[in-house]
Amino acid sequence: MRGYVALVGAGPGDPELLTMRAVRRLNAADLVLYDALVSTDMLEHAPRARRFFVGKRAGRPAMRQEAINRLMIREARLGRAIVRLKCGDPFVFGRGGEEALALAAAGIRCEIVPGVTTAVAAAGLAGIPVTHRGVSSAFVVVSGHAEAAFEPVLRSLEPHSATVVVMMGLRNRAAIRRTLLERGWNAATPAAVLLGASTFSAHGWHGSLDQLAGGLAAPDEQAPGTIVIGAVARLAAAIGVQPWNGQQALGK
Amino acid sequence: MRGYVALVGAGPGDPELLTMRAVRRLNAADLVLYDALVSTDMLEHAPRARRFFVGKRAGRPAMRQEAINRLMIREARLGRAIVRLKCGDPFVFGRGGEEALALAAAGIRCEIVPGVTTAVAAAGLAGIPVTHRGVSSAFVVVSGHAEAAFEPVLRSLEPHSATVVVMMGLRNRAAIRRTLLERGWNAATPAAVLLGASTFSAHGWHGSLDQLAGGLAAPDEQAPGTIVIGAVARLAAAIGVQPWNGQQALGK
Repeated sequence: MRGYVALVGAGPGDPELLTMRAVRRLNAADLVLYDALVSTDMLEHAPRARRFFVGKRAGRPAMRQEAINRLMIREARLGRAIVRLKCGDPFVFGRGGEEALALAAAGIRCEIVPGVTTAVAAAGLAGIPVTHRGVSSAFVVVSGHAEAAFEPVLRSLEPHSATVVVMMGLRNRAAIRRTLLERGWNAATPAAVLLGASTFSAHGWHGSLDQLAGGLAAPDEQAPGTIVIGAVARLAAAIGVQPWNGQQALGK
Repeated sequence: MRGYVALVGAGPGDPELLTMRAVRRLNAADLVLYDALVSTDMLEHAPRARRFFVGKRAGRPAMRQEAINRLMIREARLGRAIVRLKCGDPFVFGRGGEEALALAAAGIRCEIVPGVTTAVAAAGLAGIPVTHRGVSSAFVVVSGHAEAAFEPVLRSLEPHSATVVVMMGLRNRAAIRRTLLERGWNAATPAAVLLGASTFSAHGWHGSLDQLAGGLAAPDEQAPGTIVIGAVARLAAAIGVQPWNGQQALGK
């Protein structure tokens, strides 16, 4: 029996947005390493697995990446079936690439299981299509955790040429707003801030780019919200926000 | 009994990349309207549904969007449970927004079921993380079907500030290459062209931006390939390409 690691995207939060393959890998897992934001309901698909929480919690630091990699390599060499369960898609701001490289260097079999990325799903579940015929034929996804990460993109991008999605950027809303306004974006451009997408705590703010910095009343600025900026955000008023659980939407 | 329409993302092609909710909605469907590129294996999850193919096939035109909308509205008013099954995510180049608006205007209940978007998954399954610490903290997804759709983004974006993903752009590879080189991108920037992602016919080409126009030998330029441009494309050599079916990868 040969061990392996499946790098699995868990989607935005709702356990029903796991893929069939994700569930299959969880079913077979001996060991699951999961991040913050992964719903514990998802772990019920892995009844016989040991489960390690390896994310950040309440300000305490996460297990270091090197330690996560070492643990996966050691356990895979012992023949274990391992699931590394990551929010959204494993290759969108998830350090999944680093893990895949470490596993490859160690000669461990590694499978990539793409997931529903929160960047697109948070918007969609709030009634915002990131692309829309005649409105936007492109979208940009940037990390908002540090100005150096998003500034080159937002400072250069032709105004209104793409929907802008910023992940993990709540505390940098003022810098995001300023950069886009200085670049020539219209201050009235629709904007939204989406929190807890696809979970029972989903809520959002809708306004304009100009109002973005003030937007939410007392938001948790460490929360991993999604910011969407562009004319498509206006469509939410007509398309409507999804209830947190689609089963409720359809009365089942 | 009230009818409804679920706008469901089918993912990139592999039926196992359907979400749990997508499968649940298919199970309950009276009627499924599906596009080209949706695997017919997926329809087995909808054993009691009537099935309408509404996409383009062999050069023949698709059912017109207005006709699709009218059909969904009429059947929902008859109390039917309808799944509108779309490739990838329903709001990424899928006209899902238009369908959601038409349903909302008609007072029909509509649920959005996000899917695994091909833009991210095609890259990931080819061993390319669209973001990677120290290499890329942003990615741009553009429609490549017409120069007007991608040119404003690619002409303005700061070179190397984001991974560029072009959907449906095979026949415009020369224009994409020229636009990026004129903007100052390094001709040696890694690039990949990915076809049939997650299906038995998956294959790809890896080279440089400079080689992009010539890249594939005799490609079907109407095929809905994914082009990825950026330093992250170099990681594929180390991370490795996924076999078309992850079950094979893990020997199950």
